[in-house]
Parts: sequence; structure tokens; C-alpha cells
Amino acid sequence: MAEMLSVVYAKGFRVGSGRGGLKSKGDDVMLLVADEPAAAAAVFTTNKMFAAPIRYSREVAKSGRVKAIVANAGNANAATGDAGYANAREMAKIAAGYASCDAAEVFVASTGVIGRPLDMDKVRAGVEAAAGNLGSDVAAAEAAARAIMTTDLVPKSSQRSVTIDGCEVRVGGITKGSGMISPKMATMLAFITTDAVITTATLQKALLEATEVSFNRVIVDGDMSTNDCAFVLASGKSGAAEIKAGTAQYDLFVNALSEVAVELAKQMAADGEGATKLVTVEVTGAADNDAAAKQARAIAMSPLVKTALFGCDPNWGRVLAAAGYAGAPFEEGKAVLSFNGVKAFDKGVPLPKTGPINDVMKEHDITIELALGLGKGAAVVYTCDYSYDYIKINAEYHT
Amino acid sequence: MAEMLSVVYAKGFRVGSGRGGLKSKGDDVMLLVADEPAAAAAVFTTNKMFAAPIRYSREVAKSGRVKAIVANAGNANAATGDAGYANAREMAKIAAGYASCDAAEVFVASTGVIGRPLDMDKVRAGVEAAAGNLGSDVAAAEAAARAIMTTDLVPKSSQRSVTIDGCEVRVGGITKGSGMISPKMATMLAFITTDAVITTATLQKALLEATEVSFNRVIVDGDMSTNDCAFVLASGKSGAAEIKAGTAQYDLFVNALSEVAVELAKQMAADGEGATKLVTVEVTGAADNDAAAKQARAIAMSPLVKTALFGCDPNWGRVLAAAGYAGAPFEEGKAVLSFNGVKAFDKGVPLPKTGPINDVMKEHDITIELALGLGKGAAVVYTCDYSYDYIKINAEYHT
Repeated sequence: MAEMLSVVYAKGFRVGSGRGGLKSKGDDVMLLVADEPAAAAAVFTTNKMFAAPIRYSREVAKSGRVKAIVANAGNANAATGDAGYANAREMAKIAAGYASCDAAEVFVASTGVIGRPLDMDKVRAGVEAAAGNLGSDVAAAEAAARAIMTTDLVPKSSQRSVTIDGCEVRVGGITKGSGMISPKMATMLAFITTDAVITTATLQKALLEATEVSFNRVIVDGDMSTNDCAFVLASGKSGAAEIKAGTAQYDLFVNALSEVAVELAKQMAADGEGATKLVTVEVTGAADNDAAAKQARAIAMSPLVKTALFGCDPNWGRVLAAAGYAGAPFEEGKAVLSFNGVKAFDKGVPLPKTGPINDVMKEHDITIELALGLGKGAAVVYTCDYSYDYIKINAEYHT
Repeated sequence: MAEMLSVVYAKGFRVGSGRGGLKSKGDDVMLLVADEPAAAAAVFTTNKMFAAPIRYSREVAKSGRVKAIVANAGNANAATGDAGYANAREMAKIAAGYASCDAAEVFVASTGVIGRPLDMDKVRAGVEAAAGNLGSDVAAAEAAARAIMTTDLVPKSSQRSVTIDGCEVRVGGITKGSGMISPKMATMLAFITTDAVITTATLQKALLEATEVSFNRVIVDGDMSTNDCAFVLASGKSGAAEIKAGTAQYDLFVNALSEVAVELAKQMAADGEGATKLVTVEVTGAADNDAAAKQARAIAMSPLVKTALFGCDPNWGRVLAAAGYAGAPFEEGKAVLSFNGVKAFDKGVPLPKTGPINDVMKEHDITIELALGLGKGAAVVYTCDYSYDYIKINAEYHT
């Protein structure tokens, strides 16, 4: 990634990182502090098994005002019972001390191994170190993106600015998540900040809309891990007028927020465990948008499609079969399938697997376009291929 | 497998195999002939993309009387349009010539690559060769089980006899299917015969019941390929009284049929592409049976659970998370999880990953027992692990 300010791009935020010793090396604690309590929105895992920091942060989200986010990598604080919850609260309290606020104004997030007690001495040391280097420059932003990584190979950042009524409003964020091939247990954390003037309710609405086309489209089956969460804080320091739901300004803001979220989502897909390709699945002409999303997800989830992509095989049969079993209308005689613009199947007729199709399959970025010819439904999903390294990483990574 | 009579164990059937040249080597056509038209039941793929032989055999199934089954491996005759349908019908006609019946009395099944026209000269040669060695001995049965194999490493056979009113009734069958880790495109074909005296309607009912606890439980996501089908033919030659629905005799028969189907299903799971383990997932104490089945399937489908099993890792976190996102009631504090009888998680408390648990994880047959403590629902699902070879097989097998 090009260096960018990400979470400190918007006015009113500082971020710091430090090492507590929870990961085998590098910084493993991030502390993000708003100058003043910010409007806060959040989405959480829908998994019925959820980690202690999720339980804690859900309560914090109710108030809608947050001054800090504290996150650690290396230990998920999941399946740790009431003691784990007490540790999450204690972690918020430690962060609150440095952010000059109440523990009830601190979002907490954790990622890493599950079922092990969080070492609070290490957390304390990490938060202290992070608080010691709070800043709003590129180095601070970059370090924060690295501090939350687990099996991620690269840090993930994005930012956008949008002019609203002549005034610049900024949105930026970081994320971590590498098991996006199968996100069921691979934690996705996303932290986004903005200097928009916006109420908590409107910010929450905007986050849900942005999540639907981004994080929920890289989480290919709609399931989330025990620890998944995305937080947005709005400082209100842009100087622009308040963004109200149902206005053109709101649409501009949601568009910027969605672009940041989609860019983060695509970075996660590209850094999927063992991934050799970034794959975009575009379904059009479906019965409706829900049908299109079901079919795009089925294609993106199919291990047979993923392994074919790894093998650079334009395997239209596996793609069409996935669309066929997705539980939505499908007619072989109307479907047109292309890989990076080269047709592989045209309304019932397979095309020869010779020439250009074999060249495009070798590219790193693959777009699978499936036009169903049935209606106006459309959906896009981001995923990656399945390689030997996916097996290696997941067979050898013991919790 | 021990040698067995399988499809010719029941009285009134002969089977033959021959090479037509559709596979790179070995026999690739099977012809099963009943002495007289038999009561016939069938289940087919639910995929909206289905192959020509499925379309043809669905029509045959309506009559309920079948004298022969003809099957080929090496070419699935899928995504081949109306020409493919004409070829499936022609294949039935060729078989009918040797079985002395009408083409409308012949079930057709195909498995192999999709999107390529079926070479009818090869089919004709294969059926002729198969018809030339029809028999009812172990060699004929074994050859038939081999003729329908594609990526399968071993042939799959099963048989049972049951005494009904003092008279022996036999049930036996063969199956193929190796992509059962992800059966979305990996064809499962099952051919079962019995000498029970039974109407088509009652046989169909019995097959649906048996399928529910067998083939639908190894097809871990309930989806089926473009070509999946299971046929049962009943010759009525046992000499026993007619088996009528709702009687104790019916229950005995369904039990035998289910045992044969479960044994075939387990053989498919064990021969899953790249599998190093046969995995049985038993969920008990669920809210109801549907909930249990959802949770067992979610566990069996999880790539993270499958890769952990390959790594011999008693990864209770991944198993519980899958149960948690399955869309059914789950409470971490009530769940008890064991691997081969050794507890790994006990009502919210993870147990140390030391001692016996590591020994049992190295075994070939792994039973994951999850007791949810919520109700009386139970379900069993059969699956296997995910290994490097799964990726190899599916990245390199181009259609």
C-alpha cells in the first residue's frame, strides 16, 4: 500500500501502537484516541459464539459516544467466560486512563488465538507503549495498521475525501483479516474515522449501508467470526454542515464511506490466506438483487471454483453449477459467463478453452462476470483462490 | 473392500462392464439388467443446472418400471444441450437393445468431464462390451463398481440381508463419488438392487428415507452436482410377502436399505478427494433435529475444521464457531465437545490440549461429538479432512 494517513486522515484523531508481547514479534496493541468524544457506530459478528470484547463493545455502542478504540492482536479473548469479560473491561479501563475518558467510552477489539486467558500485564504494557507514541502522521497510521495484523501479510489502509457544500470531509480506515477465504473464524477488524458532522443514528445507518457492499461481500457466506467488528468514529471537525439522512450530502458521504470500506474489503480478499489471486464475482441479470447476491456468494465460496482459479483453469462448469445450486433462478440456456472479458460460455454453448482465455486466467486480478439474462438483479462479491498455502496455514496454525 | 456381490446380491439381476474408451484406461461403461422389469425408485440432483441423463432418467422414473441401468464414466454429458439429451436417449436405446426392453425402461447415468459431446461410437462399443459379459458373480459386481469410478481411488460396495416373515430379502449396491468434500460438482452415482416385493411408490418412499440419513448426510451442504442420482430397482424375486408402507416389515426393509446407503456414503467420505481421515460429526442435544443437522453440516463443511483435522489439531474453537454460526440455537456455556471420546471443551471451559487428545487426533477415523445441552435434536454427518491433495486434484483436474 502507498503510505497514507488512514485512521488519522480525518481531523480530530491520534493513533499509537506498542508492543505488549502478545504476538511473537512486533507491535500488538493499537490505541486510537479522539480529541473529543466522537459519534460512534459499530457492526458486530452475528455468530452466537462471540468473544468477550464483542460483548463489552456492544454495550459501549449503545451510548453512541466513544473517545477511544483499543485493540490487540495475538489473543482473541474468546471462549474465556466471565473472566474474559472482566479482562475486556479492564483493557477499556486501562485505555481510558490514557484517553482521559470513562471506560464506557472505549471500544475494545481483540484478534488471535482463542480459549486462552488474556495476559493483562502484557496488555497494560502494550497500551502504555501505544499511548506513549500517539500521533497523526503517516508513521503512526502505518504502525497502527501493522499492530493489528495476525496472519496478514500486508497492512491494509484506505482513505477518501469528499466535498460537501464546499467543505472537505475526510474518511479513512484500517483493517486486518486474512482468512477471508473462509471468514468463519478469521477475525476481521475494521477501524474507520471521519471528521463529518453526523449524529450517531445517521452514522450507524451509513455504516450498515457501507458494510452491505463491502465487508459483507468479502465475508462470502455472510457469517462472521467470534470477534469480527467494524467501528466508525466521527469527530465532527470537518467544518462542514451536518450530514442528515435522506439528503444528497448523505449520499455523498455514504459513497465515500463505502469506497473506503470496499477498498479495505478488497485488500482483505487479496491477502486471503494463501491467496494467489484477487477475484471479483459480478452477477448481473439475476431475478433480483438478493438472488444475485446468493449466486455470487455461492460462486465465491465454492472450493471447486477456488481451486480451479488457483490452477488458472477457466472452469465455467464449476461456476455455472454453483450458480445453479445457489437457490435462485437459473437457466443454462440464458447464461453468459466471461473471465476478464473473455467469454467462456454463451447461452448453453461452451466456448473453446483455447487462445486468450488461457492468457487472462494467468492474471492476478480475475473478474468472473456472469450475466443470467433473467432480470435486473446484480451483486458483486470479492474473494480469492484456494492454494496449497491455504491448507498449510490452516492445518499448522493451532489455536 | 471385501469382495461382495453388491448389485447382484439380490435375486434377479445381472451386471456387465466394458471399455468404450471414454476414460483414459479401464472399463467405463456399466450395464445392469433385471430379469424382468423391476419396480424402480430414484432421487436426482436438485441443481438447476442438470445434465442430459438426469433429464432423461427423470422421465423414465415416472413410469416406475425399469429393466436396465446404463452408466458411463469419463464424460458427464452435461451442458450439452438438446444434442446431449438426444445422446442420453440414444444411450438408453442402445442398452435397451441388449436388455430386450424399450428405451423408456432404461435409467441412464453419466459422470466425468462436462461440456463435451458424448462420443456415441465409444458409448456403443462400451455398452456392447458390457452386454457381452453380463453375470451375477463377484467378479461382475467388482468390475461394475470399478467401471463407474472417476477420481475415486477404490470401488465402493455394500450389501445386507434381512429376514422378513421368515424369508430372506437382499439389498445391495455400488456407488462412485470422490469429491464428497465439496460435492457441488463431484458426481455421486448410486445403484442399488433388491429382491423385495414392493410397489414403486413404497420403494420411492423407502429410498427417500434412506437417502435422508445417508447420501444427504455425506453431501455435506445438501447441494448436489449436475449429475447426481441414486437408483433402486426391486425385482420381487425374494419370495417374501409384499412390503407395505407403515408395517414392521417396511421398517425392517428401510433399515436394511439405509444401512447399505450409509455404508456407501461412508465409503465415499473416506475416499473424498485427498482425504486422509473419515470424519463422523455427531450433534446431540440440539433444539431439534433440523437444528442438529444444520450444525453438523456447518461443522462438516467448514474449511477451517477440515484443515485442522488434517493437521491433527483438536481445534474445538473452530468446531464451536461453526456450530455458532449455523443459524440454530447455541450456548457456549452448555456445549460439551469430544474427539473420539476425549473431551476438548466442557460447558464453557477449554480443556488442555495435552495427553490422550493428541493421540486420538492421529487416528484415521475421527468422531466429533458435540452435545449442545439444549434439547433432544440429533444428527450425524459424514465427511473428511482437507489436505494438500484436495487442492492438487481440483486445481489440476481441468474439465
